[in-house]
Amino acid sequence: MNPFEFKNPTKIIFGKDSIKKLENEIPTDAKVLLLYGGGSIKTNGIYNQVKKALEKVNVTEFGGIPANPEYAVLMDALKIIKNENITYLLAVGGGSVIDGTKFLASAAIYDGDTPWDILSKNIRTEKGMPFGTVLTLPATGSEMNSGAVITREETKEKLAMGGPGLFPEFSILDPQVIASIPQRQLANGITDAFTHVLEQYMTYPVEASLQDRFAESILQTLIEIAPKILKDPTDYKAASNFIWSCTMALNGLIQKGVPTDWAVHAMGHELTALFGIDHARTLAVIAPSHYKFNFESKKEKLEQYAERVWNITEGSIDSKAHTAIEKTITFFHELGINTKLSDYTKDYDGTAEEIAKRFTNRGWLGLGEHQSLSPDKVEKIVKMTY
Amino acid sequence: MNPFEFKNPTKIIFGKDSIKKLENEIPTDAKVLLLYGGGSIKTNGIYNQVKKALEKVNVTEFGGIPANPEYAVLMDALKIIKNENITYLLAVGGGSVIDGTKFLASAAIYDGDTPWDILSKNIRTEKGMPFGTVLTLPATGSEMNSGAVITREETKEKLAMGGPGLFPEFSILDPQVIASIPQRQLANGITDAFTHVLEQYMTYPVEASLQDRFAESILQTLIEIAPKILKDPTDYKAASNFIWSCTMALNGLIQKGVPTDWAVHAMGHELTALFGIDHARTLAVIAPSHYKFNFESKKEKLEQYAERVWNITEGSIDSKAHTAIEKTITFFHELGINTKLSDYTKDYDGTAEEIAKRFTNRGWLGLGEHQSLSPDKVEKIVKMTY
Repeated sequence: MNPFEFKNPTKIIFGKDSIKKLENEIPTDAKVLLLYGGGSIKTNGIYNQVKKALEKVNVTEFGGIPANPEYAVLMDALKIIKNENITYLLAVGGGSVIDGTKFLASAAIYDGDTPWDILSKNIRTEKGMPFGTVLTLPATGSEMNSGAVITREETKEKLAMGGPGLFPEFSILDPQVIASIPQRQLANGITDAFTHVLEQYMTYPVEASLQDRFAESILQTLIEIAPKILKDPTDYKAASNFIWSCTMALNGLIQKGVPTDWAVHAMGHELTALFGIDHARTLAVIAPSHYKFNFESKKEKLEQYAERVWNITEGSIDSKAHTAIEKTITFFHELGINTKLSDYTKDYDGTAEEIAKRFTNRGWLGLGEHQSLSPDKVEKIVKMTY
Repeated sequence: MNPFEFKNPTKIIFGKDSIKKLENEIPTDAKVLLLYGGGSIKTNGIYNQVKKALEKVNVTEFGGIPANPEYAVLMDALKIIKNENITYLLAVGGGSVIDGTKFLASAAIYDGDTPWDILSKNIRTEKGMPFGTVLTLPATGSEMNSGAVITREETKEKLAMGGPGLFPEFSILDPQVIASIPQRQLANGITDAFTHVLEQYMTYPVEASLQDRFAESILQTLIEIAPKILKDPTDYKAASNFIWSCTMALNGLIQKGVPTDWAVHAMGHELTALFGIDHARTLAVIAPSHYKFNFESKKEKLEQYAERVWNITEGSIDSKAHTAIEKTITFFHELGINTKLSDYTKDYDGTAEEIAKRFTNRGWLGLGEHQSLSPDKVEKIVKMTY
């Protein structure tokens, strides 16, 4: 087990009708900016529940944060925060709204030249404006971590930010929200969380037995609940395990004391930036090729994954490891998620070279758990997805 | 899955030579009371490491906190806190020293008649004096939770306390401390953590799939590392998994969203209060009889435990569940832990009646996950341990 530090102060409020507990969490003298996305919360009842719980609080609203939260849109919200002397942010949405809110929590008190620096210079946020979340779409784990990813359409970039000042003060998780989520988003959420775990697990063994088993626990639970959720999103028990698995997949716990990879995300972000493919789907495109390309360095963990998660106990290490990759692809397919870039676009020619070039320009010369995944290897992996 | 709230703000600092990081965690203008136990930290080098890290801080010391931290001793420490205007507490020890420190963190700012009220009236501590810990003996999980158990020799009582004000600000976990722990304490630590998990797991199913798997992960890891640790406490990898398993066993995570029992602890505490038997050993005495007595209401989880933790996949539910109890007893025996009260004392006559009477007097009329374990049932369970 590697050395680590772990602290996660976010308060989780989990359960049926928990949105009404909002009123206990936000100071009554706060000036709140309520942030949300495309407006589905107005049709599924969540908006009304939130407004009712905040009756006694001064609330301004900002809707329209898009999937892959867009810098230009967020800059409009930032103006409101400054002009209205907002003191507290409330994200009501999925990962995009929460990530956008994290950027705003940082930008609201950033005193450099331009908030873009926070992203382009990867400036760590030690302190941000306080904020809470009401999760409406489980997937990213953003409700219980301190990281965010922001997109800038103008430059076709998608960059990460974070810091200890960006943990939500609280997050409200009501499994009933699952009932109104479209199938496509449910499948994305399962795939996103599943891949988050893989990024923190599919590396090399360091005898971190407990972390490995926790990671496997999340994978097993996602596999178990996936067909139930897709069949019936009103299945409250399955929905509960779905939400909690997504949160635990990326709240920092399973990555402590182990090597992590994150190259799948790095490559996947580029596919979203270039083609607008859903984040989760880009991960399902990249992951299988990534594991095949890096087979030798990952095969011990692939074998452990094969045995413990997929019950593949017969055969050689190589055979078990390969079968586990195939099982993973089948799992994505059963969710209705395609796993080839060519399934999403016909304009894939040159994508691998473009991504490799971007990584080179950013100085990303060695990704992955061994810091050895150079741009030429990235190019090969992306080509395998055509 | 049941509704829950979860927040755990303790910062964990984990790894080799992490004690030196103390200097970054305690404010330099603090007046620190350094609390420890019987003095083993002076022979194993930990005391020197702590003092070196605190060179720039004003430190007063209080040693001699006994196993089962004694109220009268702690009241002496409380005088020092008041007289010396102490502002920060640092526990260097195992669960007893940390629990004692939690009592002091609460008592130091309690303004009622007598600090005994905190225990006898079970007063929740919303705010306590800030404190950190350097863990020297993994077992209780006290380093990452907000609860404590205090003993009063005068009245032969052992009572619990807690509250959100009693999370350590930080806890330093250096697996190297395991190397100097005597075998008896190592066996106790494994048994204690194992039983903590069972108290939060061996109830009835609520389809909290992730929590169940996390609990099973800790049990599997403890079973895996137990022989390694007892054979060679300098095995750093096993020690790392041992410490982290003990911490995760009782930091609140696995108990959220599921029913919990804790009747084994309630009965076990009385055996310590009456006979001075090591806490962990009382749990190993009570647990098997408790599961046998409550077999019908616990057998579904006993079967799941049998299958997933002990790989018992053949036979009826009852048969698998019974075998799992026997496996648990064997596990304790292999640790060198006896599982009958009569193994520890010849004066056991009347113990069951005495414990039942105490529970009646305290109004503890329905323990366990169904609040149905009445004092007459407690009496029967304790008799089964003779």
